[in-house]
Amino acid sequence: MLQYSEAVAVSPQDRAAYLEFALQATDRAGAATLPFFRAAAAAANKREDGGYDPVTEADRASEALIRDSLRQAWPVHGIYGEEFGLQEGNGLTWVIDPIDGTRGFLAGMLHWGVLLALFDGQAPVLGVMHQPFTGEFFYGDGERAFYRRGDAERRLRTRPCPALEQAVLACTGPFFAPGQEWDAYDRARQSARFTRYGGDSYHYAMLAMGYVDVAIEAGLKPYDIQAMMPIVRGAGGMVTSWTGGNPSLGGRVLAAGDARVHAQAMRLLA
Amino acid sequence: MLQYSEAVAVSPQDRAAYLEFALQATDRAGAATLPFFRAAAAAANKREDGGYDPVTEADRASEALIRDSLRQAWPVHGIYGEEFGLQEGNGLTWVIDPIDGTRGFLAGMLHWGVLLALFDGQAPVLGVMHQPFTGEFFYGDGERAFYRRGDAERRLRTRPCPALEQAVLACTGPFFAPGQEWDAYDRARQSARFTRYGGDSYHYAMLAMGYVDVAIEAGLKPYDIQAMMPIVRGAGGMVTSWTGGNPSLGGRVLAAGDARVHAQAMRLLA
Repeated sequence: MLQYSEAVAVSPQDRAAYLEFALQATDRAGAATLPFFRAAAAAANKREDGGYDPVTEADRASEALIRDSLRQAWPVHGIYGEEFGLQEGNGLTWVIDPIDGTRGFLAGMLHWGVLLALFDGQAPVLGVMHQPFTGEFFYGDGERAFYRRGDAERRLRTRPCPALEQAVLACTGPFFAPGQEWDAYDRARQSARFTRYGGDSYHYAMLAMGYVDVAIEAGLKPYDIQAMMPIVRGAGGMVTSWTGGNPSLGGRVLAAGDARVHAQAMRLLA
Repeated sequence: MLQYSEAVAVSPQDRAAYLEFALQATDRAGAATLPFFRAAAAAANKREDGGYDPVTEADRASEALIRDSLRQAWPVHGIYGEEFGLQEGNGLTWVIDPIDGTRGFLAGMLHWGVLLALFDGQAPVLGVMHQPFTGEFFYGDGERAFYRRGDAERRLRTRPCPALEQAVLACTGPFFAPGQEWDAYDRARQSARFTRYGGDSYHYAMLAMGYVDVAIEAGLKPYDIQAMMPIVRGAGGMVTSWTGGNPSLGGRVLAAGDARVHAQAMRLLA
């Protein structure tokens, strides 16, 4: 289990080098997933309780490749990944979601990606999301964020949104835990202009790009959200827990492109 | 309003020529949408009741371009499109959804496409779905169906799925009308292996490709479903109303890749 620890300082020069590494590592990992996309990929069932949690060959190929690259490039750093767990390091930990949106991937859909973040013990200092089928990269360091596809590159910036009534809301699925969690989410949903489902990390990418205003999720793992945090923040947005706390270890996450709609959504979710 | 009329016979030669035309027309229309994708596209509100129904410049550009091509190529045929309504013809009617998945398009997401079908008065005899951002074409004539991206082309075939418990289920959004419609849908959802949302016509494309097993929707318009029918059927799947009838004019639609799971879902929806 990834846990909080004292923040390790990362110089701007090191951060730039780590970000460049992360772009290259996710590029290679993404290429390793493509032979399994829309192919007869094996789906194992890793949950003992019989719940469905697909693990594909692609997941393992992607994470193994990133881990190998990390061990060669930064052997003292820790690694935490969805498939192969935690390897302790010097306080800096690379956080891997080898395929975020596995169910979308299995269904042949397009909203999935390879996620890689570097966690300093308190928060991720950089993040990359890469979709290899479309050739898209979204990346940021908390201060700036960018989109790259082929030779085209653009700065990512969230858009203004003064109120939830004007907001495009996104969440992975509508079926939160019954009871309080559902009620809280449903209040937000009914206020919003419209809601999109099934996007996984793409929702945060589109929030950073200025086409989604609010994202609300629950039950996230650290690797589901960490890569997207420096991207959203670098684009001018906010990512917190439902109560405004640090979302780096996952759980209930609220992201917004405009502080006003973030505050309004937080009140509804309280 | 598009209505049923006596079926007009279409020869295999004509059908092949119409399909080739449809591929070229959707290619041009798709190219016309891209300057508006992830740009500051204008969204008008065309519903008097204040409900949100986005109309983008891209929608209009796409449909106008297809209509112009149709008038030049087949001036005696009818045209029915989402944006510019019905123009009567000789009994054969081209059915256009200039951008299916407008909300996804507005949110910067990837599950949208240009849809074009040819309706013989009883059923569509061919259909094309084109996603210009990814460069994908899905097309079929009810007997065969294909996927094309760049130089890569493959035959589309649905996969076997004996029971709903093993099925990947898809629907655009989870919020059907409260009451009977919701209850019926919810029974199917709880039986399925997992459910994907927010895919619009992509769900039918992935059903034809063999990665989604069942799609359930309500409130569809003729242009939402007609292009996907010859693709799904050409891949070996079934598309009907919830009660097994003709879905060509929209409404409640049930599609499945395997007749066994179609029958099971129809019983649950009854």
